[in-house]
Amino acid sequence: MARVQARTEATLERFLPSATIAPQRLHEAMRYAVLGGGKRIRPLLAFAAGEAAAGVRQIDPGRLEIVGCALECIHAYSLVHDDLPSMDNDVLRRGKPTCHVEFDEATALLVGDSLQSLAFQLLAEHRLCDDPAVQVEMLKILAVASGSRGMAGGQAIDLASVGQTLTVPELEYMHIHKTGALIRASVALGARAGGAPSPGHLERLDHYAKCVGLAFQVVDDVLDQESSTATLGKTVGKDAANNKPTYVSVLGLARAKALAEELRKDALEALSALGSAAQRLAELADFIVLRKF
Amino acid sequence: MARVQARTEATLERFLPSATIAPQRLHEAMRYAVLGGGKRIRPLLAFAAGEAAAGVRQIDPGRLEIVGCALECIHAYSLVHDDLPSMDNDVLRRGKPTCHVEFDEATALLVGDSLQSLAFQLLAEHRLCDDPAVQVEMLKILAVASGSRGMAGGQAIDLASVGQTLTVPELEYMHIHKTGALIRASVALGARAGGAPSPGHLERLDHYAKCVGLAFQVVDDVLDQESSTATLGKTVGKDAANNKPTYVSVLGLARAKALAEELRKDALEALSALGSAAQRLAELADFIVLRKF
Repeated sequence: MARVQARTEATLERFLPSATIAPQRLHEAMRYAVLGGGKRIRPLLAFAAGEAAAGVRQIDPGRLEIVGCALECIHAYSLVHDDLPSMDNDVLRRGKPTCHVEFDEATALLVGDSLQSLAFQLLAEHRLCDDPAVQVEMLKILAVASGSRGMAGGQAIDLASVGQTLTVPELEYMHIHKTGALIRASVALGARAGGAPSPGHLERLDHYAKCVGLAFQVVDDVLDQESSTATLGKTVGKDAANNKPTYVSVLGLARAKALAEELRKDALEALSALGSAAQRLAELADFIVLRKF
Repeated sequence: MARVQARTEATLERFLPSATIAPQRLHEAMRYAVLGGGKRIRPLLAFAAGEAAAGVRQIDPGRLEIVGCALECIHAYSLVHDDLPSMDNDVLRRGKPTCHVEFDEATALLVGDSLQSLAFQLLAEHRLCDDPAVQVEMLKILAVASGSRGMAGGQAIDLASVGQTLTVPELEYMHIHKTGALIRASVALGARAGGAPSPGHLERLDHYAKCVGLAFQVVDDVLDQESSTATLGKTVGKDAANNKPTYVSVLGLARAKALAEELRKDALEALSALGSAAQRLAELADFIVLRKF
């Protein structure tokens, strides 16, 4: 995990425009928003899915690095925009002032916009598969996962849910979009950059990703209840303060924890047919559910 | 022109998610921001460049429609974000209330984000060239044109220029990014979707696009000085009020008009080697410089 995190950091460092290139302040703010923080869950999933898809063949780590960077650009852009005053109005992220606090609102808006473009640029300007038609498909996967029927749509549903009482299926629907879509894309893109997986394997990997994506959010809600702002590096108790439904508010703490454990088992079950090549994906499911931050 | 505009409108209508699909309010706002307005200059350029590149061969209008829609999604997203209170804080666009006035700020932010994703989705989910490797190149062209070294970067330079005295080269540098990058991409993408132009032709088309892109902005500045808000459908005199440098403020009205005319001639000159297939591009250069709105 530390190796993939370091690789991701180094590749982001290389592909984010230097703060000495005009427009300097925008590039400085883009680097601020992306570098030196985050668990890099999405690149970790992409690398592990690449290994699972490659099986006994060698993966090309350079291809997976690019995929990981593109995913982090989308993820970081979503955080920068979500933190804006018109959205969650948050001042702390990854233990640092949020982008609009450190710079200004207009710059933070353009940082998010530019990071989204950069994600697609990265997927389009490097060779990621032997077959360019599959690379076009990868670009489509990232676009759909990011857009109004994926991550951005989930954010819209999240905003609309403030002050609402949601059922468990409604809460799930929101998170399948808000966090789940990009986590599924991480696995789907990693698998394609790692090799040429069979449709059957892709389907199992996708089921794994759906479970892990949802588990990730359930655990986030549990940690938000049980941890401190210092441990998480972001404001805790914000959802409750904003009157937003969470798995803890809807299910209670004990049932939320049980759900996370159930999803972890379901994710591991989906990997059983993939053999030892899926070992790292299994470890990541454990990491995501058992983490403390 | 009217035929391409109608085609673009119909294709956008088809590919923008319906307002009956969840998240409904986001989809309704996306449609509000894109449909029923605008001159569709970028699709017009893409179609004309496609014809110029095809020469005597038949173009596939379906491919150019998709390219035109992707360009309009990027353009509309940039307008929605530029109009936000933290940016230009504008209330009128295409004769209607701006997106954040009609809906709300958070929705307008997500509208822009989702329209950017949709642009890349459109270019990735339809077959636009016989060679998928060229399609990957098209996705890269759009990403670079939209990002921090293209349109979004131009917007950052624009923000930083408020209250500054710029030289003509500095003003040109700003507009080459802010408006020019997407106009160049329109011609580059249209040419590739229209056929397989030679490198020499691509270079001439790109020179044409650079001239037209700059002329477009010069004429915008002239119209902003000479027209009324009712004619333009957007607030006039805003740049002067915001203390932003324009071609008129830097060159004066007469020299700005002369520059637009010079750029028009330069654009037409670049087309001379392309023969009658470039007729529509020539007409568009005239339209852009001689327009009154």
